[in-house]
Amino acid sequence: MLEKVDLTKKISKEEYKKRMPELEARLGRLQRECKALGIPVLIVFEGFGAAGKGLQIGRLIQSMDPRGFEVHPIKNETEEEQMHPFMWRFWTKTPARGRISIFDGSWYRRVLIDRFEKRTKAKDLPEVFHSINSFEQQLAEDGDLIIKLFLDIDKKEQKKRFDKLEKNKETAWRVSQGDRERNAHYDAYAAMMEDMLFKTDTDYAPWTIIESMDRRFATLKIYTTVIKAMADQIEKVQRRNAGKADGAERAADADGIGEIAREADDQMKDLQVSILSKADLSLSYTREEYKEKLDKLQKKIEKLHGELYRRRIPVVLGFEGWDAGGKGGAIKRLTARMDARGYVVNPTASPNDIEKAHHYLWRFWRAMPKDGHVAIFDRTWYGRVMVERIEGFCTTEEWKRAYKEINDMEKDLYDAGAVVIKFWMHIDKDEQERRFKERQENPEKQWKITDEDWRNREKWDQYEDAVNEMLMRTSTDYAPWVVVEGNSKYYARVKVLRTVVDAIEKRLKEE
Amino acid sequence: MLEKVDLTKKISKEEYKKRMPELEARLGRLQRECKALGIPVLIVFEGFGAAGKGLQIGRLIQSMDPRGFEVHPIKNETEEEQMHPFMWRFWTKTPARGRISIFDGSWYRRVLIDRFEKRTKAKDLPEVFHSINSFEQQLAEDGDLIIKLFLDIDKKEQKKRFDKLEKNKETAWRVSQGDRERNAHYDAYAAMMEDMLFKTDTDYAPWTIIESMDRRFATLKIYTTVIKAMADQIEKVQRRNAGKADGAERAADADGIGEIAREADDQMKDLQVSILSKADLSLSYTREEYKEKLDKLQKKIEKLHGELYRRRIPVVLGFEGWDAGGKGGAIKRLTARMDARGYVVNPTASPNDIEKAHHYLWRFWRAMPKDGHVAIFDRTWYGRVMVERIEGFCTTEEWKRAYKEINDMEKDLYDAGAVVIKFWMHIDKDEQERRFKERQENPEKQWKITDEDWRNREKWDQYEDAVNEMLMRTSTDYAPWVVVEGNSKYYARVKVLRTVVDAIEKRLKEE
Repeated sequence: MLEKVDLTKKISKEEYKKRMPELEARLGRLQRECKALGIPVLIVFEGFGAAGKGLQIGRLIQSMDPRGFEVHPIKNETEEEQMHPFMWRFWTKTPARGRISIFDGSWYRRVLIDRFEKRTKAKDLPEVFHSINSFEQQLAEDGDLIIKLFLDIDKKEQKKRFDKLEKNKETAWRVSQGDRERNAHYDAYAAMMEDMLFKTDTDYAPWTIIESMDRRFATLKIYTTVIKAMADQIEKVQRRNAGKADGAERAADADGIGEIAREADDQMKDLQVSILSKADLSLSYTREEYKEKLDKLQKKIEKLHGELYRRRIPVVLGFEGWDAGGKGGAIKRLTARMDARGYVVNPTASPNDIEKAHHYLWRFWRAMPKDGHVAIFDRTWYGRVMVERIEGFCTTEEWKRAYKEINDMEKDLYDAGAVVIKFWMHIDKDEQERRFKERQENPEKQWKITDEDWRNREKWDQYEDAVNEMLMRTSTDYAPWVVVEGNSKYYARVKVLRTVVDAIEKRLKEE
Repeated sequence: MLEKVDLTKKISKEEYKKRMPELEARLGRLQRECKALGIPVLIVFEGFGAAGKGLQIGRLIQSMDPRGFEVHPIKNETEEEQMHPFMWRFWTKTPARGRISIFDGSWYRRVLIDRFEKRTKAKDLPEVFHSINSFEQQLAEDGDLIIKLFLDIDKKEQKKRFDKLEKNKETAWRVSQGDRERNAHYDAYAAMMEDMLFKTDTDYAPWTIIESMDRRFATLKIYTTVIKAMADQIEKVQRRNAGKADGAERAADADGIGEIAREADDQMKDLQVSILSKADLSLSYTREEYKEKLDKLQKKIEKLHGELYRRRIPVVLGFEGWDAGGKGGAIKRLTARMDARGYVVNPTASPNDIEKAHHYLWRFWRAMPKDGHVAIFDRTWYGRVMVERIEGFCTTEEWKRAYKEINDMEKDLYDAGAVVIKFWMHIDKDEQERRFKERQENPEKQWKITDEDWRNREKWDQYEDAVNEMLMRTSTDYAPWVVVEGNSKYYARVKVLRTVVDAIEKRLKEE
C-alpha cells in the first residue's frame, strides 16, 4: 500500500483555514451522536517515527468534548503489562459504549517495533496477526467503530525531522537510538509496515494512509477520515434502529447525518491516495524506438514462453484500464509470437446466467491456467470493485470485502507457483476523447465504440476514485499492479511487454 | 473435538424404521425449497477411512431429486487438477444457486491425507488453513449453505472393517496401503484431524461429528443434521425476503419450515455428541481416602504455587457446573494452603452497568492474572454460550461466534505462557434435587439456594445440550475442559486438585 503513495500532497494555508472550522464543528457534533447512540470508537495512530502522531492527536482532540475520550500513549510495556498477555493492555483500554479511545501507537507495535528489534519471532507472526485480527473483528462485530490511520513520511523527511529535534535541547530526548536505527534501515522497516498493512487491512477495520509530509494536509485528511467513518457508522446504527421503530421515530432520525457522510465522502476524493495522478503520461517512444524494442521483446517472450512450458510455470496476466486505454493493442503485441497452444485470452463481459448463479470469482477460477500455460484476462475480477461498485450491482459490504477475497485468490495462485501481474492501462481524459472520436469517424473502428462508453466517461471521477482505492488495497508483492502510462501507445505496449519479460526472467532465476 | 465423542451410540432397527420415512420426506421437501429460493448447498463428508462415507452418501441422496445434486468423489488429483492451484478443482465444483454439491472427501484432504503423507509441508499449514477458511467464508457470505460432516470410528472398528473388505475379492481393492498406514498410526492421524476440526470449526461453516460405529445411528444423525441446517437457512432467507415484501407475500412464506427446523432441533438432542453422559457418576472416595489424598495434594499445591511464582508462570482456572455441583467446595479445598498473595478468586455474577457497556470478554480480560499468579473464576466467560444463549440475552449469531472468540482468547493466554484449565462440575438431576433440599432445610445453607436455582433446574435439558456443544467446541489441547464426576464431593475435589497438580507439574517439566 505504501509504495504507491504520493507524498507530495500539500494544502495551502488559506484553504486549510477555510475548511477546518466546518470540520471541527462536525467532529464535535458526531462525537455527541456516537455518545447518544452508544457507539464505542477506537482511533489508532500508527506510522513512521516523527510523522507527527502526537501533534495530530493533539489537533484532533481540540474539537472533542474531553469528557468523552481518552488518549492512550503506547510506549514500552510497564512491568505490570509485561506480566500479562500482550493483548491484555489493549483489551482493558477498549472504550465503553459511547466513548472514544485514541491510541498513540497500538497493538501493532508487536508486528512493527517488536518485530524489527526481534522481540517478536518470525515463527510467531502468523499467530500474532491472527490475534490482532481476531481482536478487531470481535470489537467490530460488537458494534465498535475502528479507525486506523497510518502516517507516512519518507526517509529523508524523517531524518530531517530527527535532526531538527536533536538540535534543540528541549526536544532531543524524543529521538531514541531505536528511531535512528529504523531510519537507517528505513526500507527494511517499511517492508514490515507494508506486510502489516496488507495482513490487517480488513473490511471491518480498514487502514487509511495519511500522507504526512505536509502537516496541514495530514490534519485535513485525518479529520475527514474520522468524520466520514463516524457518520457512516451512525447512519448504519440509525438505519438498524429505524428497522425496529415506527414512522414517527424514523422521521426523527432523518437529521442530516447522511448529508455529512456524503459530503465527507466528496471531500475525501481530493485527499485520497492518488496513484493514477503520479503517472507521467508524457512518456513516449518514436515509431523507430518502438519497432526496435518491440521486436526484441517479442523474441524474448517467444523464448520465455517455451521455457515456462518446460518448467511448468503458470502465468496470469490481468488487463484493466480506461475504455480505449489500449488493452486490446497491448494484448495483441504481447501474444504476437507466442505459441497459440500455450496461452488463452479470456475476454470478460457482463456475467451470463450461469455465471450469475455462482460466486463472482467462480468464472475466473474456472479460467485459471494450467501449469506452464498463460492466461490473459481482458478485464478481470476487479469488475467487482469498479463497475459493480459504481453501478450498484453489488452491495457496499460486498465490494468492501472483495479486496480481501481477491487478495486471497491471487495468493492461492501465487502459492501454486503462478506469476501474477495486473496492468492498469492509463490515459487521460483528453486522450480518451480523442480516441473515442477517432473510433467514431473511422468505419473500421466504429464497432469499438458504443453509447455505454460515453456514459462511462461521464463517471470518470467516480471510476478514478475506485481505481485509486483498488490499486492501493490490492497491489501486493506477489501480485503487483503496474500502472501503464498509455497516452503513447508505443510506450504502453513496450512497457507491458518489458514488465512481463522482467517478471518471468526473475521467476526463472528464482527457481 | 474427537476425544470427547461417545462412540457407543446406537439406534435400534425398529426406531430407525419408525423415524426414517418422515426424515426422507422432509429432505425432499427442503431440497425443493432450496431450489425455489436459490440457495446453493455444499455437503462435505470427511472422516476416518471405512467410516462409511460412500454408503452414507448413497443413503442420503435416496431422498433427493437427482436433477438437483451432484456427487463429487475427491480422490487423488487427476493430471489436469495437479496442474492447477489446489483450490481450483473445488471452486469449479461449487454449486449454482439452488443446487447441491456433495463432496466425498474434499479440500480438507490437503490438511489430512496430504499432511500425513508429507505432501503438505508443515511450514505451509498456516497458509493452507487460511485458504480453506477464506474459501468457505466467501461462499457462506455469498449465501451458500455449507454442511460439514465428520464420520468418526475408532481404531479397532476401522481395522475390523478393513479386514472384512480385504477378505472379499470384490472389495479388497478398496483398502489401500495408505489406509493401512493411517490405521497403524491412528493416533497420529487423529491428532491431525483434531487440529483440522479445531482450525476450521467456524460459525459460518461448523463441523458436526457423526458417530459412525452404528450405521443406523449415523444415517439418522446425518439426515437430521442436513434437515436442520437446510431448514434454518431457508428460514433465514425467508425472513430476509419478508423484510422486503409486503403482508400478502409474508403470509405465503409461513409454510411450516420453522416447525421443521424446531423439530429437527429437538431430534438433534438425543443424537448430539453427549460428553456429559459418558461421565461415570458412581466414582467416589471414602472419607478416609479423601482425607489422605486431599492432604497430600494440598501440600503439593502449596509447593507448586511457590514454584509457579518463581518461574513467573500464570495459571487460569475456570469453574463451571450445575448449580450445587460443588464449585465452591472445590475452590475452597484448592486454595486452602495457597499463599493468599498469589491467587485471586473471581466470582462472576450478572454483568454490572459498566461491564454491560463493553464487549462481554472485557471484564474477564481485566481479571487475567499476572505472570506467576493464579486466577480462579467461579463461573466464567462461558456464560455467553450457556445462560446468555438459553435466556436469549444475546443473539444466535452472537453465541455461535463466541466459541471461536473464546478459543482465541484462551489461545492468547496460552501463548503468553499460561496454564489454562476449565472444570465442569457434573452431578445428575437427582443429586441436585437432594442438595437443593438439603440447602433449604439447613438454616446455614439457605442463602445458597434461590428461586432462580429451581427455575434453572427446569431448563436442565436445554442446559445439557448447550454444555455438550460447549465442551465439544472449546476443549482444546492448550485449554482443555475437564468433566469432574461430582456426585461424590470427595471424589470431585480430589480430581480437581489432582488435575491442577498434574497440569502444573507437566508445565514445569516442559520449561
